[in-house]
Amino acid sequence: MSLAGRSLVTIEDLSNGEIEALFSLTDEMAESREKQAGVCQNKIMASLFFEPSTRTRLSFEAAMHRLGGNVISAINIGATSLAKGESLADMAKVVGSYADIIVIRHPWEGAAKVVADYAGVPVINAGDGGHQHPTQTLLDLYTIYEAKGSIRGQRIALWGDLKYGRTVHSLIFALAKFGANILLCPSPGLQVPEYVLKKLTAEYGGEIESGKAIEDKGKGSPLPLDAIYMTPSRPHQLAMMPDISLEVELEKEVDALYVTRPQKERFAPGEDRAMEKKFPVVDKKLLEGKAFKRTLVMHPLPRVDELAYEVDADPRSMYFKQAAWGVPVRMALIALLLGAKKTDTKDNGSPKAKPDYPPYTHNLTLACSNSACVSIQETEIKYLKPEFKIIDRKPLTLRCVYCEHEVQPPYIASSQWHQGMLENRKYHSADSHWARTIKPENLIVFPSASKAEDSGFKPSQYATSPARKTVEERGGEEGV
Amino acid sequence: MSLAGRSLVTIEDLSNGEIEALFSLTDEMAESREKQAGVCQNKIMASLFFEPSTRTRLSFEAAMHRLGGNVISAINIGATSLAKGESLADMAKVVGSYADIIVIRHPWEGAAKVVADYAGVPVINAGDGGHQHPTQTLLDLYTIYEAKGSIRGQRIALWGDLKYGRTVHSLIFALAKFGANILLCPSPGLQVPEYVLKKLTAEYGGEIESGKAIEDKGKGSPLPLDAIYMTPSRPHQLAMMPDISLEVELEKEVDALYVTRPQKERFAPGEDRAMEKKFPVVDKKLLEGKAFKRTLVMHPLPRVDELAYEVDADPRSMYFKQAAWGVPVRMALIALLLGAKKTDTKDNGSPKAKPDYPPYTHNLTLACSNSACVSIQETEIKYLKPEFKIIDRKPLTLRCVYCEHEVQPPYIASSQWHQGMLENRKYHSADSHWARTIKPENLIVFPSASKAEDSGFKPSQYATSPARKTVEERGGEEGV
Amino acid sequence: MSLAGRSLVTIEDLSNGEIEALFSLTDEMAESREKQAGVCQNKIMASLFFEPSTRTRLSFEAAMHRLGGNVISAINIGATSLAKGESLADMAKVVGSYADIIVIRHPWEGAAKVVADYAGVPVINAGDGGHQHPTQTLLDLYTIYEAKGSIRGQRIALWGDLKYGRTVHSLIFALAKFGANILLCPSPGLQVPEYVLKKLTAEYGGEIESGKAIEDKGKGSPLPLDAIYMTPSRPHQLAMMPDISLEVELEKEVDALYVTRPQKERFAPGEDRAMEKKFPVVDKKLLEGKAFKRTLVMHPLPRVDELAYEVDADPRSMYFKQAAWGVPVRMALIALLLGAKKTDTKDNGSPKAKPDYPPYTHNLTLACSNSACVSIQETEIKYLKPEFKIIDRKPLTLRCVYCEHEVQPPYIASSQWHQGMLENRKYHSADSHWARTIKPENLIVFPSASKAEDSGFKPSQYATSPARKTVEERGGEEGV
Repeated sequence: MSLAGRSLVTIEDLSNGEIEALFSLTDEMAESREKQAGVCQNKIMASLFFEPSTRTRLSFEAAMHRLGGNVISAINIGATSLAKGESLADMAKVVGSYADIIVIRHPWEGAAKVVADYAGVPVINAGDGGHQHPTQTLLDLYTIYEAKGSIRGQRIALWGDLKYGRTVHSLIFALAKFGANILLCPSPGLQVPEYVLKKLTAEYGGEIESGKAIEDKGKGSPLPLDAIYMTPSRPHQLAMMPDISLEVELEKEVDALYVTRPQKERFAPGEDRAMEKKFPVVDKKLLEGKAFKRTLVMHPLPRVDELAYEVDADPRSMYFKQAAWGVPVRMALIALLLGAKKTDTKDNGSPKAKPDYPPYTHNLTLACSNSACVSIQETEIKYLKPEFKIIDRKPLTLRCVYCEHEVQPPYIASSQWHQGMLENRKYHSADSHWARTIKPENLIVFPSASKAEDSGFKPSQYATSPARKTVEERGGEEGV
Repeated sequence: MSLAGRSLVTIEDLSNGEIEALFSLTDEMAESREKQAGVCQNKIMASLFFEPSTRTRLSFEAAMHRLGGNVISAINIGATSLAKGESLADMAKVVGSYADIIVIRHPWEGAAKVVADYAGVPVINAGDGGHQHPTQTLLDLYTIYEAKGSIRGQRIALWGDLKYGRTVHSLIFALAKFGANILLCPSPGLQVPEYVLKKLTAEYGGEIESGKAIEDKGKGSPLPLDAIYMTPSRPHQLAMMPDISLEVELEKEVDALYVTRPQKERFAPGEDRAMEKKFPVVDKKLLEGKAFKRTLVMHPLPRVDELAYEVDADPRSMYFKQAAWGVPVRMALIALLLGAKKTDTKDNGSPKAKPDYPPYTHNLTLACSNSACVSIQETEIKYLKPEFKIIDRKPLTLRCVYCEHEVQPPYIASSQWHQGMLENRKYHSADSHWARTIKPENLIVFPSASKAEDSGFKPSQYATSPARKTVEERGGEEGV
Repeated sequence: MSLAGRSLVTIEDLSNGEIEALFSLTDEMAESREKQAGVCQNKIMASLFFEPSTRTRLSFEAAMHRLGGNVISAINIGATSLAKGESLADMAKVVGSYADIIVIRHPWEGAAKVVADYAGVPVINAGDGGHQHPTQTLLDLYTIYEAKGSIRGQRIALWGDLKYGRTVHSLIFALAKFGANILLCPSPGLQVPEYVLKKLTAEYGGEIESGKAIEDKGKGSPLPLDAIYMTPSRPHQLAMMPDISLEVELEKEVDALYVTRPQKERFAPGEDRAMEKKFPVVDKKLLEGKAFKRTLVMHPLPRVDELAYEVDADPRSMYFKQAAWGVPVRMALIALLLGAKKTDTKDNGSPKAKPDYPPYTHNLTLACSNSACVSIQETEIKYLKPEFKIIDRKPLTLRCVYCEHEVQPPYIASSQWHQGMLENRKYHSADSHWARTIKPENLIVFPSASKAEDSGFKPSQYATSPARKTVEERGGEEGV
């Protein structure tokens, strides 16, 4: 399937085959700069940065220039005319009439999707709040692919702040999608959130082994932290993954060590000092471990103290190369989305790998509970309707189509009964057996019993379970 | 007359013929992008934005890139080195030696004129405070021209904030110049200022009919607001305007509805809440009116709430197209000013349509009373002299050549008498018969009787009229 | 020697021959713009401005565009992601992988050297705090060269703020290097710092004559201020400088008058008002003086009040031309550093004119005492080691290799004795005869007696001299 005219909002917008095709083109882009100098001639890229990110912006702009294209850019636009109460949709339409492709960074989660929906030209998400930063994921993957020849079967250790290091979550899913084996080595207190692990097992067929096993190995372990070992378990991946024990695996080498900095700016109050102190440092000594003999040392940069300068000269250090690959990766992406280059994708595939969950259609009063979600912002509610997918029934879980945050409403009702027989205006506990018989297209959800009653519903016999608290950001089993 | 090397400071810098020639070239620019890619090769445009205006800037920069040219830009330069007490003239000369054309937005009224006077290269005014934003006017006009084939005789309704919506004032004059019929539909309390109406009748031959007639039509009126109907009355325009009654006219269709947002940031204290509430909304329901059947719905954007999103999908909605036309309109303008494209203008015409008023040469102590005028700013008074034109004698009215604000000084004297016979050092009331015999080149004006006496003048017998208050911003009849 | 691949951090990075070759290429660049439009095609310049300087940045960017190159730029990056605790070295490596050449302005002195050391691509210093701004010096020199045909033997008067006008210090050294005669005409209280004069005589062979002689000439003097006359005295320069008396010299014309503005933002508290008032103005009247008949009036701009607008129209006024030359000078420089143009340099010469002082290798506890020096900043000490050259022994003077600030430590010891015989752990007064016998490679310095004793050293018999206070920023005689 052609990439021309499409947008890249989340890494899941690309199939494995498309990513591999993009990497082939990246090789070509990196090979000879001169040959690429006319690929996007007369094309204009708008780079719109509502949040500062000099590195990412310069990388995109360098990529466009190397393709012979032009750039118009607006940075720190929080304070400018685009903010005179104007909606993202209006901005997208206007800039889409000036430029051939838009790169956007915005603090609101889901902002890039809105821009992509309205711009009329391809849009690349250069970071939408805590949601996604897919080109960072692409260049991380490419670094492994380029150095190791493949991602499948590689043993990748993710290190440091796995709680707030959000691009790391995208990377985890992408690595799983490609069948890599993942070792999670979080700094104390900065573990991967539960919903990420759940999504891994539910959507990517991961199989998680506790880190206890590793700790039991004793002092010999090259990884000084708690670790959770994640192996892909789906059939097509298992084919490539013989039955292995964790101990045997750890005798083997780590193919890449992905180091992240503590995202202090996102630490909750109280997490500050103590957690920073415990943050482990990757230095010469650590890398002397047997398992790290041929390990790629990666880091998304900027670093602070978690990666010692003494490692820079080490041939295993890949982080500056990794940053440098950002340019040809983005060149390839821009050229493909603009239709200036074509590729043969190896899969016949649907563009999106993620399962097609049924939509929640009865959007009565349900709004996304994520305060950073684009869909609930004052300027956006004038034209955007909340949209959710029903991604699980046990427990009932809805995912916002904009920011992908999840919500588990405790009470539900059926719109069919409601319309058919008024006396049946009853609400039920979401985890009652009865509730699960309601078809997706008839589903009405309530954030609380009182909200249900405000809407004129009365408790049914299946509403007796104690009020479950609304849990945000929980994943679950695969949906209906 | 060639546009090469000229600047665009106010819309009046272009004759009707030149504007029409520019529109022909705009058609060409919009037709094929590839053909234009070499038009301004090796040329550099400096875009200097002393005030934020992302949309306008990106539009100009996209235009230059589509012409194959380069852009250097400085934004939010209020706080930078250009502000180390440096004058606009110095800045203009320096940047004029770096770039081939300058686009400037500045908060001071008349700033673009100063830059044009000193830069040595063509300058385009991208907004100088509350004064002018001529390329916005050009793209508004082009939208009508493109959709309707002509501006002459079109019935254009201007809607909303006609008091502070300043680009709307420029548009009114431009529409009048092209012989359009104008319906003014202000939001309550946000009527067109009196001086604009006076200028319309005095300089553009407009004829104003009160909105009462419309109100009397009753509830059937498609325009729910007070309206003033303005028809061009000068001979050459009348030729195209048969004698019509207002009622007949309203039965006809409105050709374009130009919606503006409330310029809250300019509201006087106390105008805020109440006026915002009364601000009328253009929505589906309003556009169901018979008169709007083929109406172009226009808006300079950004919009806030005055134009409902439900209208976006309507084929009559032109506002995103209007924004998009900004690029080819600016391409045509840049190409013409740089001499990269030539046109045949249909009029033999003087470049300026506005009448040539006599200058006020005796610039004793008179400074512009507009606090935003460039001519009175600390860094500019070192080299700029105040300059005025005498645009009317009854009442005596002077217009600043920089910001075009008007002043009506209550007392005057003659420099001839003063130099000839010292005993005649007398001042007179500006509206006395005697006063009007003073030749423009001898005119001395005083803002008050005491100022006249401070300057050593005594009241004459024609200074008996009660002291008229100085009225700023009033237009008047055509001058001597 | 080829300039390709090299960086320009200080003006001393270029030999006289290289500067002359650069000026020949500047002539070529200024001659025909069309011919240069492909010189740097497909090349990318990153312009990184950590401090505002719109004029300099626009000049560089215009230069790159005229060469057919592309620009990615980051301005006001103090507040952005590059400041997330990231080091200059990391930033340099990353941006060096995006761009082919980097232009940097940064408030830390020595910052450009660090970027040049790590970027892997040529770096141009566009101003590093109070240290250097070499392209300004180049365009100042070029203006004289272009107008007068040569710099050697020209009589250049430097006027105004010679204390804080820091680019003026670089210009003084560069003029001396080229054998110009320099008249220093400081505004009262804003004299050239002593260390600059010392460096002039020590490193550039200048010979200073007091301004008294000039004052004695009486009211006829065209220079109303105290003046110090500086003539080059080194043999190769003397050949061109016949024995002249100051009076005879002053009868002659001044070839260029280099005016500077009061750098109020650097005035110490208390210097403010009084000094500003005394600041001399260059106006029509001053320039009527006989000595100024054919004087080039120069100014680095922006000006405030020290240079009257009435002089602008005078044919001797060069300051706007001077600013304009910034573009072709920078074009030539960029083209040479990128290897896109080659030149024959007239000297066989070492690239650096400055003497090769021995390094201070025993970097115990000595850190640069300049609070603006890059080498002592929190983010940089993680990887940068302080580095000094021993530039004089009497008094002992060390110069920081980053910011070039000088320090005169009062006490020293020898590492050889220390390592050989522990009982000799003695420290000596830096100006004792004994102390001067210590070889540079064995030298240990102490900022105070107590610091020496804290380090386990005891006073020797040569430590009896009264503790000299540490004097920063003093020059001295030529080193060992």
